[in-house]
Amino acid sequence: MKKRIVIIGGGFGGMNLARNLAGAEGMEVVLVDRNNYNYFPPLIYQVASSFIAPSNISYPFRKMFQGKDNIRFYLGSFRSVDVDRRIVHTSGGSLDYDYLVLAQGTQTNYFGLQSIRENALPLKNIDDALKIRNTILRHMEQACRTDDAVERRKLMTFVIAGGGPTGVELSGMLSEMNRYIRTKDYPELRDDPMHIYLVDAAHTLLGTMRRKSQEEALAALSDLGVNIRLSVAVKDFKEDTVYLSDDEQIAAKTLVWVSGVIANEVRGLPQEAVVRNRRIAVNEFNRVKGTSDVFAIGDICYQDTDAAFPNGHPQMAQVAIQQGILLAKNFRKMINGKSPVPFHYKDKGSMAIISKYKAVAELPVGFFRGFIAWWLWLVIHILPIASFKNKIKLVFTWLWNFISNDPTLRLIINPQKSTAEKKDSQ
Amino acid sequence: MKKRIVIIGGGFGGMNLARNLAGAEGMEVVLVDRNNYNYFPPLIYQVASSFIAPSNISYPFRKMFQGKDNIRFYLGSFRSVDVDRRIVHTSGGSLDYDYLVLAQGTQTNYFGLQSIRENALPLKNIDDALKIRNTILRHMEQACRTDDAVERRKLMTFVIAGGGPTGVELSGMLSEMNRYIRTKDYPELRDDPMHIYLVDAAHTLLGTMRRKSQEEALAALSDLGVNIRLSVAVKDFKEDTVYLSDDEQIAAKTLVWVSGVIANEVRGLPQEAVVRNRRIAVNEFNRVKGTSDVFAIGDICYQDTDAAFPNGHPQMAQVAIQQGILLAKNFRKMINGKSPVPFHYKDKGSMAIISKYKAVAELPVGFFRGFIAWWLWLVIHILPIASFKNKIKLVFTWLWNFISNDPTLRLIINPQKSTAEKKDSQ
Repeated sequence: MKKRIVIIGGGFGGMNLARNLAGAEGMEVVLVDRNNYNYFPPLIYQVASSFIAPSNISYPFRKMFQGKDNIRFYLGSFRSVDVDRRIVHTSGGSLDYDYLVLAQGTQTNYFGLQSIRENALPLKNIDDALKIRNTILRHMEQACRTDDAVERRKLMTFVIAGGGPTGVELSGMLSEMNRYIRTKDYPELRDDPMHIYLVDAAHTLLGTMRRKSQEEALAALSDLGVNIRLSVAVKDFKEDTVYLSDDEQIAAKTLVWVSGVIANEVRGLPQEAVVRNRRIAVNEFNRVKGTSDVFAIGDICYQDTDAAFPNGHPQMAQVAIQQGILLAKNFRKMINGKSPVPFHYKDKGSMAIISKYKAVAELPVGFFRGFIAWWLWLVIHILPIASFKNKIKLVFTWLWNFISNDPTLRLIINPQKSTAEKKDSQ
Repeated sequence: MKKRIVIIGGGFGGMNLARNLAGAEGMEVVLVDRNNYNYFPPLIYQVASSFIAPSNISYPFRKMFQGKDNIRFYLGSFRSVDVDRRIVHTSGGSLDYDYLVLAQGTQTNYFGLQSIRENALPLKNIDDALKIRNTILRHMEQACRTDDAVERRKLMTFVIAGGGPTGVELSGMLSEMNRYIRTKDYPELRDDPMHIYLVDAAHTLLGTMRRKSQEEALAALSDLGVNIRLSVAVKDFKEDTVYLSDDEQIAAKTLVWVSGVIANEVRGLPQEAVVRNRRIAVNEFNRVKGTSDVFAIGDICYQDTDAAFPNGHPQMAQVAIQQGILLAKNFRKMINGKSPVPFHYKDKGSMAIISKYKAVAELPVGFFRGFIAWWLWLVIHILPIASFKNKIKLVFTWLWNFISNDPTLRLIINPQKSTAEKKDSQ
């Protein structure tokens, strides 16, 4: 009798786990996701800024699993788990499992700020990115039509809350849009620049990176004209005003909220398993505390058994990838009665793109900045993109757009609720 | 004082008019459209069938008009015209004009069938195409999950009402999807084929084309397994059942409605100007009857002054293109006090793609079918696509997908209401 492994979520963790179980004897794998495609989160900010198309960084799960006979895809949103009966409930139906792997990651954390949840734009997935793209383009159109200078300035003011890589990258790209696109596409706005604010409660940008990277980002974005506010929190956003903790008020129609994440809620787990930021406590083999056959990997899990990371790992792609790969190996071992191997994270560094031809890269081999770091970033971000064809298309799109300063993707096509949510409401 | 020409609609007619007025002395042109992009309607069925991406055939108006200083873009939905005060009202605001050109084309005609309007899927624009793409993919996912064989068959039955080029092309492409994609992407459905019906009230497919083309389409689609119902009308669609006029009932969750079009309504014109199918009667210079400075071009207009077409021109891209180009010339003449030239349509032929490597082409130089017609179709449909880059991308996408039988675009990303409508409701 085959063991059925149900994986919730097809991000970096879930995908690498599923792929590495392809052809595994005695195992039947079901990957559950609320979308029918895998996407590459590090590049969604480029979708949000009309630089690349969603299809450049998205890939259908079913195509990925073609010919992998022991892997099935299942479209659905996670609802809850019944650990006693070993059943997982999703919006698409319920599934029995022998092993369950929770890999559904995190969601935007609004820290209880209700008006921000209602009025700000998050940037966690493709639908969010399209919504931001549409909002920016729609606001530029409205700015072209209005005769009211105050209204126009509000429409052309974009506040980004959160100075991590996404906030830095997005504000850099909006500045480039202001410099290269606005003047060419919007002759009505030739004398009305965009106003871009980047706000972070910490005293520095790129808080998780090294000082050199932080300084480079600050200098480069200031040069590009981004208004940077550090050691200041966004407190509220209503009636076209962003309220900061130092009492500054910014009149703006758009607030992009990339200030933090919280683990997706998992109903049905023992209480002891849910810890800080809703993360799920796991042991050294990624087994969820207080359960015997539920595992968690990636951003959603909290593992304090790795000697170098006593307070858990950073919530990064590399951790999820390595946990997914190791868990696949461990499932093969366990099913053959062998002992699993504990997880140890191998740091591969981190990088952020700041603007055109400028990036910072902290790699095991050293620190890079400027043009070299930018090329490194490009290469490293192309390699993991699914499929040879998507890679070619992405390289082509990138080179063309970087050289021309003028991509052709400024299309207002409206995204809606996610696939699985939509289905729920039917 | 410059004359202001306001063009409503940036399709084949409006675009060609605007482009040909670039740099025209004494004229200021405003192109109004409900979307911020021009798109290529002959290929939307390939978007609907996940074969190409929206961005392959869409191009932002503002990018198109870069550097053309006398042309402005204006995002808005047409509401009404006040011919006495020479003001046009749109969802984005009101505009004065010296000359108004109505080029907003047609919309889907439901012939008063209310349940079809509510339950069927039209295919007139990019948003429609994405909605069909999402519906097909979602139904396939649901079919994978259900244990109910009757339900599964309904989910996998696709009825297309309308045997014109769009209906023929879409049913051909769905058959290819059934043959190549279903078996690879949906192992759960290996023994459950898709059921594709193509229904037309006429006694033949491709009613406007020659007999040879009609027979070729019928034979090719029958070979591909499409269930063709001719001389039969779709009467109703409710509770997962398509009702035909010969009392046949087809259990299906999807009805694509490409049975006919009706001109978009234009409020504010003199009654004598609105004729059959809401088309707008124009004289030989495309001036709207009963008005002095309102013109209409393309599918929306009805011109019976062309000797070879006493009952008006067919509603085809070529007519709109030629009318747009001529009207630009005539505006230049009129503004310089010269006499305008009457319109005469030059037939450039028509073509339809039937399936992979098969098409029919009725060109002035002769009739082509099969592989040669297919190549002709490809070349002729690449040439008018806006921008060199979109052309390269489209060729690349096409060749890859035709050869691999397996595009990567089966992504369920949800479209919403059109841009301008959305703005209205804000």
